[in-house]
Amino acid sequence: MNKLANYVTGRWITGDGTGQPLYDAVNGSLIGHASTAGLDFASILDYGRNTGGPALRKLTFHERGRMLRGLAMHLRNHLETFYKISYQTGATKADSWIDIEGGIGNLFSYASLRRQFPDEPFCVDGEGIGLSKQGSFMGQHLLVPREGVAIHINAFNFPVWGMLEKIAVNLLAGMPAVVKPATVTSYLTEAVVKEIVASGILPDGALQLLCGSAGDMLDHVVSQDVITFTGSATTGLKLKSNGRVLSENVPFTMEADSLNCIVLGGDVEPGMPEWDIFVKEVRKEMTVKAGQKCTAIRRIFVPENKMEDVWKAIGKALGQTTIGNPLNEQVRMGALAGQTQREEVKNQVQKLLASSQIVFGSLDSVQVVDADATTGAFMSPLLLVNEKPFENAAVHEVEAFGPVSTIMPYKSLADATTLAKKGKGSLVCSIVTADHSIARNFVLGAASHHGRILVLNNECARESTGHGSPLPQLVHGGPGRAGGGEEMGGVRGVKHYMQRVAVQGSPSVITSITNVYQRGAAVKEEEKHPFRKYFEELAIGDTVITHKRTVTEADIVNFANVSWDHFYAHTDHTSLEGTIFEKPVAHGYFILSAAAGLFVDAKKGPVLLNYGLEECRFLKPVYAGTTIGVQLTCKEKTVQEKKEGDDVKKGIVKWLVEVTDQTGEQVAVATILTMVKLKFQ
Amino acid sequence: MNKLANYVTGRWITGDGTGQPLYDAVNGSLIGHASTAGLDFASILDYGRNTGGPALRKLTFHERGRMLRGLAMHLRNHLETFYKISYQTGATKADSWIDIEGGIGNLFSYASLRRQFPDEPFCVDGEGIGLSKQGSFMGQHLLVPREGVAIHINAFNFPVWGMLEKIAVNLLAGMPAVVKPATVTSYLTEAVVKEIVASGILPDGALQLLCGSAGDMLDHVVSQDVITFTGSATTGLKLKSNGRVLSENVPFTMEADSLNCIVLGGDVEPGMPEWDIFVKEVRKEMTVKAGQKCTAIRRIFVPENKMEDVWKAIGKALGQTTIGNPLNEQVRMGALAGQTQREEVKNQVQKLLASSQIVFGSLDSVQVVDADATTGAFMSPLLLVNEKPFENAAVHEVEAFGPVSTIMPYKSLADATTLAKKGKGSLVCSIVTADHSIARNFVLGAASHHGRILVLNNECARESTGHGSPLPQLVHGGPGRAGGGEEMGGVRGVKHYMQRVAVQGSPSVITSITNVYQRGAAVKEEEKHPFRKYFEELAIGDTVITHKRTVTEADIVNFANVSWDHFYAHTDHTSLEGTIFEKPVAHGYFILSAAAGLFVDAKKGPVLLNYGLEECRFLKPVYAGTTIGVQLTCKEKTVQEKKEGDDVKKGIVKWLVEVTDQTGEQVAVATILTMVKLKFQ
Repeated sequence: MNKLANYVTGRWITGDGTGQPLYDAVNGSLIGHASTAGLDFASILDYGRNTGGPALRKLTFHERGRMLRGLAMHLRNHLETFYKISYQTGATKADSWIDIEGGIGNLFSYASLRRQFPDEPFCVDGEGIGLSKQGSFMGQHLLVPREGVAIHINAFNFPVWGMLEKIAVNLLAGMPAVVKPATVTSYLTEAVVKEIVASGILPDGALQLLCGSAGDMLDHVVSQDVITFTGSATTGLKLKSNGRVLSENVPFTMEADSLNCIVLGGDVEPGMPEWDIFVKEVRKEMTVKAGQKCTAIRRIFVPENKMEDVWKAIGKALGQTTIGNPLNEQVRMGALAGQTQREEVKNQVQKLLASSQIVFGSLDSVQVVDADATTGAFMSPLLLVNEKPFENAAVHEVEAFGPVSTIMPYKSLADATTLAKKGKGSLVCSIVTADHSIARNFVLGAASHHGRILVLNNECARESTGHGSPLPQLVHGGPGRAGGGEEMGGVRGVKHYMQRVAVQGSPSVITSITNVYQRGAAVKEEEKHPFRKYFEELAIGDTVITHKRTVTEADIVNFANVSWDHFYAHTDHTSLEGTIFEKPVAHGYFILSAAAGLFVDAKKGPVLLNYGLEECRFLKPVYAGTTIGVQLTCKEKTVQEKKEGDDVKKGIVKWLVEVTDQTGEQVAVATILTMVKLKFQ
Repeated sequence: MNKLANYVTGRWITGDGTGQPLYDAVNGSLIGHASTAGLDFASILDYGRNTGGPALRKLTFHERGRMLRGLAMHLRNHLETFYKISYQTGATKADSWIDIEGGIGNLFSYASLRRQFPDEPFCVDGEGIGLSKQGSFMGQHLLVPREGVAIHINAFNFPVWGMLEKIAVNLLAGMPAVVKPATVTSYLTEAVVKEIVASGILPDGALQLLCGSAGDMLDHVVSQDVITFTGSATTGLKLKSNGRVLSENVPFTMEADSLNCIVLGGDVEPGMPEWDIFVKEVRKEMTVKAGQKCTAIRRIFVPENKMEDVWKAIGKALGQTTIGNPLNEQVRMGALAGQTQREEVKNQVQKLLASSQIVFGSLDSVQVVDADATTGAFMSPLLLVNEKPFENAAVHEVEAFGPVSTIMPYKSLADATTLAKKGKGSLVCSIVTADHSIARNFVLGAASHHGRILVLNNECARESTGHGSPLPQLVHGGPGRAGGGEEMGGVRGVKHYMQRVAVQGSPSVITSITNVYQRGAAVKEEEKHPFRKYFEELAIGDTVITHKRTVTEADIVNFANVSWDHFYAHTDHTSLEGTIFEKPVAHGYFILSAAAGLFVDAKKGPVLLNYGLEECRFLKPVYAGTTIGVQLTCKEKTVQEKKEGDDVKKGIVKWLVEVTDQTGEQVAVATILTMVKLKFQ
């Protein structure tokens, strides 16, 4: 009989004993057993720390990103295998798409994020900070990978996405992972990890998998580790309270129960596009994954005078949802993950029914297509109504983790905001409104209690990714009941797996450490103009101090002529009263252009083009008669990856441009970007 | 007899009972008693949440910042009172300066930080994120103040700075505070809060003070609260493990024990300036505040062949440190905070002596000036040597919170890095070296285990703020044993008191919510040119779509002439082979300048000057024959505070500049900054 394997310490190992039986959610048949009994959890964590960690930390962000992309491309070749197994969890094809291709999409997304990091194993965080009057002492924050292991304890509802959304982030950060999916659907996670291991793309120790109990693993954590948990608040709290987790100050990111809500704006009437958008969103959130999403809508707030219209419209939409065997193409809602899950949902509904009543669906019966409603974990969507949401606590506290949601009335937008916050912290809420000021007031009022807020209207509904979808670029998590955690969020997520350190010293030392030129650091002026150097030959701090140029009235006039910029401050002697200008001032863009005229080396060479300009400030007016000079310093270098169609290898070089006048004062400062050819193609 | 008062629920209230006796550290005399017995902690927290919170959240960052500045200026008028009381804690004048003026400096520093935030009660976090192909759906992270109370439980060593460094941050964020200083030195904190309350600058409920036990306060926290703790790891762990803190997911920032170290680089020889810098830094860190600093140096790592030279040099420096009554001007090191503290330090030293020996100082006797070594809590500095730091755990674990430090040998830089990390997470470490590559290797190797690393050399020593000084601009905290927390860090710290929320919707909705124009949002083109509008009249989204201009060969030549920029790509038809250019390309700066020529309204008006340029990218080559047009859109507005000498009120307006060619494709995009006059002066 099939026993799932654990991938630990570089090998596939089956646990001792019989293990926990796992069942097909659709037909109740036995799939196999899962066990981690007999595993040495201390060694597993050590293997991650001592083998996976050092290997990942040697790689740069760019290398780690390309590794993720390779992994995503590899997994994309095995979709059929994964979909086939996913049906057994009760998921429809659309549900599985979210889990499987959503997870792979996440890998691609974090792979692309590498471009927001330097091609180094660490990165700087924010700008350099001057800490002294003379400029000889400064600070710079750095982020370096934590030297522990990321332990991911995941929920049953997304066995693929749940793993991939998390490991994408820790791997990009340079940390290895140990993944413990919820046992009930771990067979799908196991199938994906088998392909990951077979690909040989990740270094040894970068990923380990446990199918079954986490045993005493958390008793072996150390302060450099990170734990993330997705699941019920009860389990989360138990793990978070572990003495070792607390005493070692291990960051614990938690994503738990959440009574997410949706609000129908007071402006929305039947017949408006927003009315249909609202009904469709609620139906979708109640039925996708059979409502087994941490982000699913549990509470629906509507203006009190529209209660009945709304519940009838939602009921109608739910009535059109075909339930049954997910392999049947007509089916729009599959089974819950198992009998245990269904019983749990029914128990929670019973608690809600103390203060609410069912207006759509049945707790006891469900019509299914192509399946047996007794052996499969099927359930009817249930729409409840609670008329007194200010008086009842249960409706804001009891999470029925299935296709269950409750409609409640509100009087004013302020009331709707207060009701939304009665969830005591949610992952997400939505408001459907065509009125931007309603949107603004609700969002700013409810923001403190939510990790994400979606404003749906006719402008964006066609392209909206929906209430229920966490996105790799946005933070996923919420305060309070939702666990207080944060995941993903683009670069924000990566920082959870890194240690921030403030480094202090002289600008020259900070330049040496960061490979980014810091103002005031030592520079090197050579015979050879830096524009004549190939990318590899350029050193941070390479400088050219240019010849000078006395700005004349003719220059200002000529610049006005060529630019057509006849702004009075440059051209009209009679209108300067009350301005800061004593005389017509040279155009700021003239200063920039004249600076380029001074620092550019004109002959064809490795510099290919002017790419852009950043952080430019004009610091002092330049008049006719002022003499300017420029110091151009190589500030930062990033190799570009060769893309399809590129014929040369090149990199982006950032230069610090400092323009001074004859008194030595700076008149303008900017960072310019050029594209520079590599010598070795 | 004097009983300290608690400032809670808008009143000064003395606790019930006798309370805890407080003694003068220098002469042992009774100062008074502290008690919080009988206080209703639930009401205290509610008062902060319901009275202080709403008042602070109504203010913008700029208003909160000015409030902090006002507070700092007020406190600066009462320095004498504070210094007088501070002597009783055993602090010298220099010690008190760090505590009192350092704390006030922190208020000024966070006041200035307001300029990095918008003039709104909330702020955007990062850039807008496109989430759809057609551009109708996007995301934007916001930060809003948490709706709870910041509870600060502080250490005894910095009764002023400890409070001010924390409340500066939560007040700027828009959160109220409850401060509980360590009871033993709470009389100084009380004196400062008395002045704060008397100033009337803070809104009611923004600050409450507890002098004495925290009672059952933590049993009343809710998920919107934030707790910060500074003190011993044992107490911190106990508080962090509170069931309510855990179940409500209250963020708990902890700054606890830390075995900070300093490393002498292998390159440093006696006679080099770095040698003296090293000795001086160690002496300073051992004796300032009598070594009662969380950041003080506890471990000293030196190359094994320099052990004896180093300990002799440090011993000599320590021998020249006068100890005694801090009121005596000769005195360089005062008393510990009390007899209890001294006993505790001595107990810890006993533990260290199991594997180390004293090479300077005495555990039993100390020579003091102008004081009685029996009644005052004086102690001799103690320099220990431990020859086998790889074999002994105690030296990396036992913190003697006084003038005590241990010298240890190392063989290689890699060994020194490993030894530094044996502290299992520290607030700060330093390396003294003149060699930048030693600095780089050490910093990158040790960064994962430290919150701050100082590189000291002759370039920066004169202006260095030192190993022991946390700075408002830099994060303070460290992983693992140091508590895993982060404080201050400029804008980073403020974020600890705010909730991050990802808002999704159409660009127009996101623009309405954030008051920052998002690309793709609706724009408004009016007859009146936006350059003719005063600051108040300008609306986000105000747009001008310009006339067009066909770029000619003459333009490119004329621009080369006026700028002197003769880069081959613009001027030389024969050198374009192998470049991306088909013909000589117009200068990027010409495109920017010509864009200004198109969008500028030339007549004198409210626009005062061109302030700068950001995020400019050149997207497509522009050749002679290309026709360009510009869309200029008002993106963001920030009022400037009127400074001394300013004669007009004005604001900074950011504009999005989008330059397109005749095919409708963008050729350049940039954000420009102008200064615009206010209508109402």
